[in-house]
Amino acid sequence: MKKKQDKPKEELKKLGKQLFCQINKGKNPELTFTLRGLSNVIFDHKLKSLRLGDKKSTRNFFNLAHAKKFLQTLEVASVSKNLIKEGKHASLRDAFYQIKRTIPNTKTNVVDEQSESDKAIEDLEVITGLAREQLHFNANKNGSVAGKVVILDKGDTIDWSKLGSGGWSVPSNVEDIKFKKVNAKYILYMEKAAVWERLHEDKFWDKQKCIIMSSQGQTTRGIRRLLQRLSEEHNLPIYVLTDFDPWGFYIYSVIKYGSISLAHLGSKMTIPTVKFLGITGQDIENYKLEKHLIKLNDKDVNRMKQIMNYEWFKDNKKWQEQFKLMKRLKAKAEIQALSSRGISFISDKYLPEKINKKDFID
Amino acid sequence: MKKKQDKPKEELKKLGKQLFCQINKGKNPELTFTLRGLSNVIFDHKLKSLRLGDKKSTRNFFNLAHAKKFLQTLEVASVSKNLIKEGKHASLRDAFYQIKRTIPNTKTNVVDEQSESDKAIEDLEVITGLAREQLHFNANKNGSVAGKVVILDKGDTIDWSKLGSGGWSVPSNVEDIKFKKVNAKYILYMEKAAVWERLHEDKFWDKQKCIIMSSQGQTTRGIRRLLQRLSEEHNLPIYVLTDFDPWGFYIYSVIKYGSISLAHLGSKMTIPTVKFLGITGQDIENYKLEKHLIKLNDKDVNRMKQIMNYEWFKDNKKWQEQFKLMKRLKAKAEIQALSSRGISFISDKYLPEKINKKDFID
Repeated sequence: MKKKQDKPKEELKKLGKQLFCQINKGKNPELTFTLRGLSNVIFDHKLKSLRLGDKKSTRNFFNLAHAKKFLQTLEVASVSKNLIKEGKHASLRDAFYQIKRTIPNTKTNVVDEQSESDKAIEDLEVITGLAREQLHFNANKNGSVAGKVVILDKGDTIDWSKLGSGGWSVPSNVEDIKFKKVNAKYILYMEKAAVWERLHEDKFWDKQKCIIMSSQGQTTRGIRRLLQRLSEEHNLPIYVLTDFDPWGFYIYSVIKYGSISLAHLGSKMTIPTVKFLGITGQDIENYKLEKHLIKLNDKDVNRMKQIMNYEWFKDNKKWQEQFKLMKRLKAKAEIQALSSRGISFISDKYLPEKINKKDFID
Repeated sequence: MKKKQDKPKEELKKLGKQLFCQINKGKNPELTFTLRGLSNVIFDHKLKSLRLGDKKSTRNFFNLAHAKKFLQTLEVASVSKNLIKEGKHASLRDAFYQIKRTIPNTKTNVVDEQSESDKAIEDLEVITGLAREQLHFNANKNGSVAGKVVILDKGDTIDWSKLGSGGWSVPSNVEDIKFKKVNAKYILYMEKAAVWERLHEDKFWDKQKCIIMSSQGQTTRGIRRLLQRLSEEHNLPIYVLTDFDPWGFYIYSVIKYGSISLAHLGSKMTIPTVKFLGITGQDIENYKLEKHLIKLNDKDVNRMKQIMNYEWFKDNKKWQEQFKLMKRLKAKAEIQALSSRGISFISDKYLPEKINKKDFID
């Protein structure tokens, strides 16, 4: 994801010109793009990232099976062009409503469901090689951040260390943020907002000279991109703190390797250097959390079986050890179980100790 | 909710002294409190708030049916006392783990499920007359705010108008925030973070001299309390912007009248002056949204039937009109449907027009 402002405009123009040329030559307008979908998703061992394979697909305007999708893609491109021109951004839902209309003299709508416009946006991502944020389509906003970092955003200078108990609210799109000062040794990312509030109240980021960041549950694109930019532009290690359960492992996995549904973005959104900090199976013994294990339910067990067979986990000894431990314990454990040892045990003991020992899983 | 720091400490001390006296006199230790639960929830027409009735309940230590709950309430009180002493706050999940342990020489745990410690915290709220935030137990954190407001929080001076595209991340507990400067005519609260980002990008709060605030879905306690404090301390009107559907109406209802599950807090969390701004049934015609209606599903219909019979909606003509329209249309409509009229139609036309005309539902 380059930050050059003009690239999206150029790419959209290029697409328009291509089609214009085809039409001028009396050809059937055609879009060519890399096939999405599971059959063309591969794990790139070199890039350490899920990405699309080489299978291509074409779509023609004069083809009954293609015409509607062709139109949807161009409608979305047109909305994107206007957004870029006006310097505005739309949510995926906005984009849906913006292209939703009945085609004159027909009873056919351009789109009936948001899933159609979402797919059209993904098509446009694949065709132009741009991320949807660059096309001015935003995903959901969530999450907070604190640390000794000063940024410049929309003309405001914002000091992440001076925002009281709330912190800075991470926007859905962080492409235009400029980092003015980054005074941190690492980033700690956690899946739970309540844990973030715990660490923030303990001034963990100040004592440990780090950045603390969190959303709630699955990591938003805004957060993933913010983590990635800080990692790349400031060479900061990132440690991920989740529950000891398949869902927590998957949160880590998505940040590090990407996800099947976003494989078309390849390494644009992945951060191969992130490390898993905890909670690990060993932590349960080391920090006396045995009494606070929670029995795995059927959903947990099924998810665990899926995840442990993912290519990037399958041949990884340390991860297979985690799955074995989880299977043997037949249980999961939450980050907050550490509170049983004292409300600030996580800040005073658990995290500093593990980070000092470099007790990570890669 | 008074902000005096000593009150919670005093109330907990009072509770301890009471029990100590009873024990000293050789009595069976007893806790008396107002009964929670549906049978004792009433809608107070004067206060315009759901609250508990007069039914009382007692709980004794030497009573097999009471002993465990008695213990849980005292354990939670003890955790609260320590948190206050240390100046720290715990999430509900933290509190659960803090009191979760096996009673020595038995196989009984103080608590097995978080629902037990949650209820014990509610007991303590009823007994002490304090909100859980004052007892240093925090609910979930979510949401963002922007506007011409300067606050003081944890020693930081924070200007809500200078926080770039993200805004200030609203903490779970806003009791200790001080408002230094409030330069706004009203507050616009919306259920969707994506709509907040739309208005923020359009600098709506600057153009309209207002505060924009949002969580995602149900309003967090932190946000409700922040709205309430701004309403009471700075006399600001609050307008609520939700979808035209039963779920949106309920979001408004909870902010205004409270909820059954939090009836024990009475008017501590309710804001009787808030007004519903939209989306209304009339808006659908006025702003040409007919093409963007979404058919009500069974869940929607059932929820609508429940809500329209709530005491505070039943005798309200304007609200019954909304329910009739929804029934007739057999459909709901989303805020983002306004994007079909242009991406900034909501900021440039819909909101200013409705607010100018004072087109609210009370």
